[in-house]
Amino acid sequence: MTTTGSKARGRKRTKAPEDGRRRVVIEGVAPEIDGGRFPIKRVVGEAVVVEADVFADGHDALSCRLLYRREAESGWSESRMEALVNDRWRGAFRVSEVGRWRYTLVGWVDPWTTWRRDLAKRVAARQDVAVDLRIGAELLRAAAARAPEEEAELLTGWAERLAAEADPGITLLELAAVDELVERHADRAHATLYERELGVVVDPERALFSAWYEMFPRSCDGADAPPDGEPPHGTFRACEERLPYVAAMGFDVLYLPPIHPIGRTHRKGRNNDPRAEPGDVDSPWAIGSEEGGHKAVHPQLGTLDDFRRFVARAGEHGLEVALDVAFQCSPDHPYVREHPDWFKRRPDGTIQYAENPPKKYEDIVPFDFECADWRGLWQELASVFTFWIEQGVRIFRVDNPHTKPFAFWEWLIADVKAAHPEAVFLSEAFTRPKPMYRLAKLGFTQSYTYFTWRTSKWELAQYFTELTATEVREFFRPNVWPNTPDILTEHLQLGGRPAFVQRLLLAATLAASYGIYGPAFELGELVPRERGSEEYLHSEKYQLRRWDLDRPGSLAEIIALVNRIRRDNPALQSNAGLRFHPTDNDQVLCYSKATPDLANVVLVAVNLDPHSTHAAWLELPLAELGIEDPAQPFQVHDLLTGARYQWHGPRNFVQLDPHGVPAHVFRLRHRLRSERDFDYFL
Amino acid sequence: MTTTGSKARGRKRTKAPEDGRRRVVIEGVAPEIDGGRFPIKRVVGEAVVVEADVFADGHDALSCRLLYRREAESGWSESRMEALVNDRWRGAFRVSEVGRWRYTLVGWVDPWTTWRRDLAKRVAARQDVAVDLRIGAELLRAAAARAPEEEAELLTGWAERLAAEADPGITLLELAAVDELVERHADRAHATLYERELGVVVDPERALFSAWYEMFPRSCDGADAPPDGEPPHGTFRACEERLPYVAAMGFDVLYLPPIHPIGRTHRKGRNNDPRAEPGDVDSPWAIGSEEGGHKAVHPQLGTLDDFRRFVARAGEHGLEVALDVAFQCSPDHPYVREHPDWFKRRPDGTIQYAENPPKKYEDIVPFDFECADWRGLWQELASVFTFWIEQGVRIFRVDNPHTKPFAFWEWLIADVKAAHPEAVFLSEAFTRPKPMYRLAKLGFTQSYTYFTWRTSKWELAQYFTELTATEVREFFRPNVWPNTPDILTEHLQLGGRPAFVQRLLLAATLAASYGIYGPAFELGELVPRERGSEEYLHSEKYQLRRWDLDRPGSLAEIIALVNRIRRDNPALQSNAGLRFHPTDNDQVLCYSKATPDLANVVLVAVNLDPHSTHAAWLELPLAELGIEDPAQPFQVHDLLTGARYQWHGPRNFVQLDPHGVPAHVFRLRHRLRSERDFDYFL
Repeated sequence: MTTTGSKARGRKRTKAPEDGRRRVVIEGVAPEIDGGRFPIKRVVGEAVVVEADVFADGHDALSCRLLYRREAESGWSESRMEALVNDRWRGAFRVSEVGRWRYTLVGWVDPWTTWRRDLAKRVAARQDVAVDLRIGAELLRAAAARAPEEEAELLTGWAERLAAEADPGITLLELAAVDELVERHADRAHATLYERELGVVVDPERALFSAWYEMFPRSCDGADAPPDGEPPHGTFRACEERLPYVAAMGFDVLYLPPIHPIGRTHRKGRNNDPRAEPGDVDSPWAIGSEEGGHKAVHPQLGTLDDFRRFVARAGEHGLEVALDVAFQCSPDHPYVREHPDWFKRRPDGTIQYAENPPKKYEDIVPFDFECADWRGLWQELASVFTFWIEQGVRIFRVDNPHTKPFAFWEWLIADVKAAHPEAVFLSEAFTRPKPMYRLAKLGFTQSYTYFTWRTSKWELAQYFTELTATEVREFFRPNVWPNTPDILTEHLQLGGRPAFVQRLLLAATLAASYGIYGPAFELGELVPRERGSEEYLHSEKYQLRRWDLDRPGSLAEIIALVNRIRRDNPALQSNAGLRFHPTDNDQVLCYSKATPDLANVVLVAVNLDPHSTHAAWLELPLAELGIEDPAQPFQVHDLLTGARYQWHGPRNFVQLDPHGVPAHVFRLRHRLRSERDFDYFL
Repeated sequence: MTTTGSKARGRKRTKAPEDGRRRVVIEGVAPEIDGGRFPIKRVVGEAVVVEADVFADGHDALSCRLLYRREAESGWSESRMEALVNDRWRGAFRVSEVGRWRYTLVGWVDPWTTWRRDLAKRVAARQDVAVDLRIGAELLRAAAARAPEEEAELLTGWAERLAAEADPGITLLELAAVDELVERHADRAHATLYERELGVVVDPERALFSAWYEMFPRSCDGADAPPDGEPPHGTFRACEERLPYVAAMGFDVLYLPPIHPIGRTHRKGRNNDPRAEPGDVDSPWAIGSEEGGHKAVHPQLGTLDDFRRFVARAGEHGLEVALDVAFQCSPDHPYVREHPDWFKRRPDGTIQYAENPPKKYEDIVPFDFECADWRGLWQELASVFTFWIEQGVRIFRVDNPHTKPFAFWEWLIADVKAAHPEAVFLSEAFTRPKPMYRLAKLGFTQSYTYFTWRTSKWELAQYFTELTATEVREFFRPNVWPNTPDILTEHLQLGGRPAFVQRLLLAATLAASYGIYGPAFELGELVPRERGSEEYLHSEKYQLRRWDLDRPGSLAEIIALVNRIRRDNPALQSNAGLRFHPTDNDQVLCYSKATPDLANVVLVAVNLDPHSTHAAWLELPLAELGIEDPAQPFQVHDLLTGARYQWHGPRNFVQLDPHGVPAHVFRLRHRLRSERDFDYFL
């Protein structure tokens, strides 16, 4: 009787996969955003640590490699993956240049390692291994067949010794020498290549670690003393004189609201008055007049040459100029005349203005991204970035990106970065969380956050844990702002100077990138247009301001100190090492940031209450902070005050006065001199 | 000055996507296994509830539909998705037939709903809406252009009324009538179709809800009284007489270990003795002799006709016969002779036996899935399933699937189910968690679990939460076993009868599918081969056994009761509604199972300690259990004892004696007659 009936063999079956001998499974790869739909982000020099579940049927040993390359290159580099527990493997590579990179994994069943492992067990059990040694010799001969001549000879020699070996114990010891050779010529004919290639966008370091200063150039007139009347309109030339002031505070990005010609139709007055008075300057976000649009400079600020000179001067002070890109037009914008098809018309023939019913914004007309010539519109808008890149700008703060199609940004950012991989796009979207994250996934380099309104201990810990300890950290780089020209929070209005300092310290130490809108911030400007409003009174959005930079109480010095601390401490230059620690006071937030090697550990405790002094016991995970011996005291060095304290054990006490210094920013010193260092005196 | 410089337009840019006007984003779809790589599982009649993040730029209203179809059909059916909060949408469809289904999503910007919403705001703000009404009329005319004649006329009529309308308030009210019509002819030209089609494998109901009984047919000889000597070899004919006994306990799957001819080479003796005595029967998993292999019946059990008759008789008792498929061979298997290339040879020319070094299993030879003729091997092994399906079997328990390639199973199960979508594959893999889950993802209908060894409250709650309240529940259907022929746990050995009852109740109420190996289980067989072993003494794996089914203390009656409770209570027929509840005693586990509509709610409290009586306070989430008014008393009806209790509020007391009934299995009765029902007496 035969079991292999022709009847059963004859039945037509579905097609088997191309290579059914690929026994290794690779799944659960991390990081991998939305099934590989989006790349992760890194800056130059950072590591990409990849984990995956890798296993095969049965009990054979496996080998696994992480493959990586620059997208433009064709050949993969390889990095060895190591098995952790529970079939989880980990490997890493470092990205050395800006641009797009790719990574994937490959794994294969490794008969040599399997044989080595099993032989050791057989020898230990004192079994006869004569046949097993011949199996090992076969494996070496197979490796020799894949190796170049010199190595093949070595392998064949070993195969002969193995087949003839009398003492398997000696063999086992000596075989270690041949492992590396066999591995180099492993049989990967049936290796499993992971089914997806995953992307990495590698940005310049400033994409991760940056301190932004926003100012309105038109308020910067360079005059010596504030006149009583209307200040003159600022110029780029005058702004040059402000550069040392900004640089001295330690910022590295100087961000300017739109610098383009401003429309006249439906111009807004001071404090957003719908009726402008003669001489009112309107919002610079009402872009475009007969003097030009998104590629022109507002004549009162100077010429394009003046702007390029200003960018160069800023660079000499270590400041990169960031421009605001707001894709909307005044009704006077040349686009309206030249491309009427890019805008919606109402049935009465008028152009459709911006609105959020029932509110109307008649000084602004939005682009119609659903128009027939959407391709032409996209091309033109992308050319705006290229234009300014050609003037020396590489950082852009994009206004309200969430009101333009997501597909548009995904294409635009990829397109611009294909030629200028060093370009940085900051997404100004204070909208719902899913669209904010989508904008980051599709390409924005940095993103505004809800930090501005997160003031309680629970909110801050929960939100920054979401940003830094979940998958979000792979694609979303927070840039946190205590204030903006649009947002003077009630917390700042009511909290006064202590609140300003607290929010500054939180922003600068919670996130690797932060920014302030100045001089309003450092001068402690806190009067709203009206009670319940987050708008500034006499907002620079609608009028020129003259700022007295020497006003008593300016925070310029503490800002400079904080930015110096950030530059001196690598732990503060990344978001990856952030951990929150328990305290027994709901007004005291405690967290640490550490480099992966724990060489730099910064511990922060902030009093969140702008009104009262608070004390708290902190509960510290000493081992995670690099304190190897919890029985030994360790030193904490307050980088704000210079004070040093000796602490001992996980529970430690702090007391913080909001009217003095409302926070400790400690650098942990792991190794202290102890009495044992003086042993030689004995 | 023109801003649209020809220079900028002239720069060659990357290609824009095909339709940049697709403004809707669809992401975060759930369920979606590994980026759509694997299908989810459902049984006939179940709902597929799908959620996704759906949003667009700006503030326009959206429409979203869930699309679904049988894989073989080309046209989609549609189900409306509803917005929840935070851009999350939800929809559902019901699967009505076995086989493969597909689903995906489509979303589009909905200008009509946007216009309706904004118009209401404008009217409320008493704005002039004359132009807005004309915009609405344009939208209706556009819908008319997409509609068939009769509906087009209706829409055009509405458009004319709207354009001429004087009182917008009335219009708003009346427009509700036209919404459905506009929606039916919505403009989907720029709709976003989700980028993946996701799969559903729909199985027969028994794939989810089943009670398995495993027995060795060779121990079933039909003789009236147990003889003192060696029992005669059982037969399928004799097994027929056992059917009423198994059916009376309420099982619906009768699972037989391998029924094929057994090899003679290296035959094992009783209690796994490496040297068999004459007359020893060996393990039925040593498949194949000169009498045939995987498609033959062991002659002592009867003929293939006897087997088919047995399957038919079982069906008359409501029992489906499940066969064991173990892809391994005795050295005497016809495959070894006919397909020597399907097996590995050692350098000494001998065939490679199974081993787990240093252990050797010389009565078994494994297939070499890496052989050159792997396609031929796969074809033949798949034909084994087809062969038995042709004999009337549709349920298979697959032995050690994790020692054969994953790609093999994925292909085989899809191949068999393409012709026989009703086939059920139970994965017998007690291996590492990742391979177990992979086997489920790639196609196994049900899976063995770690339940067998999970005995503490924490372990059980943690494990069943993982199985039923995470993504695992979409692809992994647990089938939980208190014992198997390979596993007599120490917990049963030491716990005795109380442990047997506890484990039965846990298995039958925690999981929709469970099984026992009998008669060893219901007869309370608990002697291991030796201390520290999980093997049965005198295991049926190696010898015939005669079981006294009338042995005092048999659990047959309580098993019958438990299976009746499972059949009467739909909540116990699914794993989706499982929730654990706090108790103040670590030996008392409390959980509930509920149907989605809360029409059937079963509350279980089990004493996990086989030795001592335990009392506990249970903390119940009354609203989740359908108790609408926590101020009113509710009734719990113990389905094991028939007792009824009136409870009041979330905290309730239980006391459970392992030597009596070690658990409550309550049905909750929500609505009780109260004094208010007697109002008419007043």
